[in-house]
Amino acid sequence: MSRPPVALVIGAGDATGGAVARRFARGGYAVCATRRTMDKLQPLIDAIRAEGGVAHGFASDARKEEEVVALVERIESTVGPIEVLVFNIGANSPSSILDETARRYFKLWEMGCFAGFLCGREVARRMVARPGEGHKGTIIFTGATSSLRGGANFAAFAGAKHALRALAQSMARELAPRGIHVAHLIVDAAIDTAFIRDNFPERYALRDRDGIVDPEHVAETYWMLHRQPRDAWTHELDLRPWIEKF
Amino acid sequence: MSRPPVALVIGAGDATGGAVARRFARGGYAVCATRRTMDKLQPLIDAIRAEGGVAHGFASDARKEEEVVALVERIESTVGPIEVLVFNIGANSPSSILDETARRYFKLWEMGCFAGFLCGREVARRMVARPGEGHKGTIIFTGATSSLRGGANFAAFAGAKHALRALAQSMARELAPRGIHVAHLIVDAAIDTAFIRDNFPERYALRDRDGIVDPEHVAETYWMLHRQPRDAWTHELDLRPWIEKF
Amino acid sequence: MSRPPVALVIGAGDATGGAVARRFARGGYAVCATRRTMDKLQPLIDAIRAEGGVAHGFASDARKEEEVVALVERIESTVGPIEVLVFNIGANSPSSILDETARRYFKLWEMGCFAGFLCGREVARRMVARPGEGHKGTIIFTGATSSLRGGANFAAFAGAKHALRALAQSMARELAPRGIHVAHLIVDAAIDTAFIRDNFPERYALRDRDGIVDPEHVAETYWMLHRQPRDAWTHELDLRPWIEKF
Amino acid sequence: MSRPPVALVIGAGDATGGAVARRFARGGYAVCATRRTMDKLQPLIDAIRAEGGVAHGFASDARKEEEVVALVERIESTVGPIEVLVFNIGANSPSSILDETARRYFKLWEMGCFAGFLCGREVARRMVARPGEGHKGTIIFTGATSSLRGGANFAAFAGAKHALRALAQSMARELAPRGIHVAHLIVDAAIDTAFIRDNFPERYALRDRDGIVDPEHVAETYWMLHRQPRDAWTHELDLRPWIEKF
Repeated sequence: MSRPPVALVIGAGDATGGAVARRFARGGYAVCATRRTMDKLQPLIDAIRAEGGVAHGFASDARKEEEVVALVERIESTVGPIEVLVFNIGANSPSSILDETARRYFKLWEMGCFAGFLCGREVARRMVARPGEGHKGTIIFTGATSSLRGGANFAAFAGAKHALRALAQSMARELAPRGIHVAHLIVDAAIDTAFIRDNFPERYALRDRDGIVDPEHVAETYWMLHRQPRDAWTHELDLRPWIEKF
Repeated sequence: MSRPPVALVIGAGDATGGAVARRFARGGYAVCATRRTMDKLQPLIDAIRAEGGVAHGFASDARKEEEVVALVERIESTVGPIEVLVFNIGANSPSSILDETARRYFKLWEMGCFAGFLCGREVARRMVARPGEGHKGTIIFTGATSSLRGGANFAAFAGAKHALRALAQSMARELAPRGIHVAHLIVDAAIDTAFIRDNFPERYALRDRDGIVDPEHVAETYWMLHRQPRDAWTHELDLRPWIEKF
Repeated sequence: MSRPPVALVIGAGDATGGAVARRFARGGYAVCATRRTMDKLQPLIDAIRAEGGVAHGFASDARKEEEVVALVERIESTVGPIEVLVFNIGANSPSSILDETARRYFKLWEMGCFAGFLCGREVARRMVARPGEGHKGTIIFTGATSSLRGGANFAAFAGAKHALRALAQSMARELAPRGIHVAHLIVDAAIDTAFIRDNFPERYALRDRDGIVDPEHVAETYWMLHRQPRDAWTHELDLRPWIEKF
Repeated sequence: MSRPPVALVIGAGDATGGAVARRFARGGYAVCATRRTMDKLQPLIDAIRAEGGVAHGFASDARKEEEVVALVERIESTVGPIEVLVFNIGANSPSSILDETARRYFKLWEMGCFAGFLCGREVARRMVARPGEGHKGTIIFTGATSSLRGGANFAAFAGAKHALRALAQSMARELAPRGIHVAHLIVDAAIDTAFIRDNFPERYALRDRDGIVDPEHVAETYWMLHRQPRDAWTHELDLRPWIEKF
């Protein structure tokens, strides 16, 4: 009896990451979901299992090389070969460049970019080693408007996001001919989360008019990207609500 | 008994346009397909009908304002409200800038851009006038690598394609808040057609390895774009085979 | 006694074009300046001559191939080999896409792009034919913010400007290895002209704080571009006042 | 008697940095030049002084916050207010993503981007505090082709360079309205250095045909950028030799 294929979601939080995990579970994947601590992750694992899906939770800090290496090794040896990686970590903390601290500037990059490099490299190493020719795996990085342009008070976040996009492009150019589909998906708007509800009530009020992005719809796009046949792979796309200025 | 929704495909040729027409027909749309002459169009109409779909063929020159106005009027009054417009015309004819003729430079723009303006405007006028709030229609423009960068011998084609992308962006920024989903889809590779088979045999030989784009897969992406919920619309995406350099 | 080198300025109007003409005249160039009619051009010619410069005025419609061909032929045979071409025509006329007329859409492209193609091709043909290896000439196209992004009500202007940029890129990629420096200069702001003074008084009030661009400073940049040694050519740059949002 | 204005060049190496230092010294600036060790820096300091210029050398590691803070404090208190900052550090070390080490990925970012943040922030803090309104200073970051696109084997370098560009954009958008001219200059080619001569002899052979960039010409462009009046600031430009493919 064959094991289900494996999807690894790094940063399976309340919004996009969690929705992506559920989507791939519904699609028949054994989902391996990570957050830094298990307590926040358990509800997602429970929810997927309640829907009849297969899910494994891992407390893992994606910024630590040894943790990432161990995570990938453990999944590959106990759950199965990773077919899909979704890297979904990133945090913003706007600040005037004049007040930006070295610690925060570093941390935003470490979380939003360096962790993406560690996870991407580690999973890609496994994928390229699969036998045969064909679509050996999909790696998707989550971008933002700041992936494309810097802005006042956004130096640290935009730096991390620009660098992550450079990683996605560099990996796609090297690894697509080796059978790995690397994509970069930019969500150019607020996503429907508790954070937006609590901190941007005016924005959240647009929810009834489809003015903020439903994480389920983002997740559907990740699923679509992974399902593309290899003669027609998308490297980059954007998502935004109909009323979003851009 | 309700009529099926209408999809208008301008330039329903052997490759992308025809495949898009078939895809929307399979999805339950009454497809209105155009080419400059009916003789080349009839096989497509027949094929869709043979599959049980609804299709209407129109000989129409999209570069002529009066023909475009008449076409849209005729479809709206006899087939139904146009819900989807796919603009798929464009031709390249590489030439050194030193040898480029005014006639050819004009014609490539007229076909690849001006026709897109005429069709887009005419259909958008109808779409915005539909009652209610909601997703009132989808307009998709077909781009190419030359939409993003000029190149030696490509001044005319790149000019037309750049201008078409500017049209798509301008329309999206104006019309998305009015319920119209405008998207621009770049195919960055050869598409599997008789033209490629006959003129670029080395490229065509990659077909067995999924090295050229299957028009059916492009069509599936148009379908996906139209089906996106309005809180998560894609404005721009690219498609290319796994082995394509970019 | 050697003749001065020749600079041709297409569209030598009140703002950038006139300032560029004066700058090259001060630099020792015989300036050939064009507008559609001589009456508006004569004051510029007179002013350059009053400063001791050499200037020739030509009434010429850059959208007409036969006029452009005749203009270049006449200058080359009576004034001398054209070393610099500055293409500076373009006009905006904002309109909702729903109200845009085919006539206006065409005219904005014809003026802002097609004329650039005609002038660029015609001058490039002469430049590549000069004997020897080396910097054989400079061709500069004037861009705008709309060269880079479409916008609501800007479909026609953005289309023309995108296409002009595609022309500049295509020509640079083909002609730089043949000794022609092709550059595209984007002014991302209002320029200090009577038009801005009369129509945008609030904007014009920023003049005292250097909030609008002095045409002399744009002209200085054209001059700088032409003077760059061929191991360090700039293809693209932007100019904006310190207070301009971007 | 007034002191000369001060230009700080971070990374005053054999190529661009050293040439920029000499250019600003010839322009009447007291140049403060840094490298990690003084021994490699002394010849530049000696050369500037021999030409009659004012130069101060500082051994300083731009990746260390405390060293950058101390450097800026020392220059401001002993040499004078810094009017120009040129950040010119960066190193590439191509590697397959599969073989890239965490240590090297971090180091390329630390050197090419984090150091730029530290120097830019520290100098900007001083510049905004100068009294009055007007052009309070210029900050120029040195980019590369990898600032704009990732590439196979370039993930680390492209990540650092993309992030540096995001920094430049973010700083420009915040600080231009406060009187600081922030620019990003991309050199898209090999620069004439001993490194290119020794490692890329075929490329170096193009030197006689102006096929590699003369650092003096790059330096002239930095000088030009700093001299631009504040109504016409360039944020971004590129430089490449006439024969460079792009």
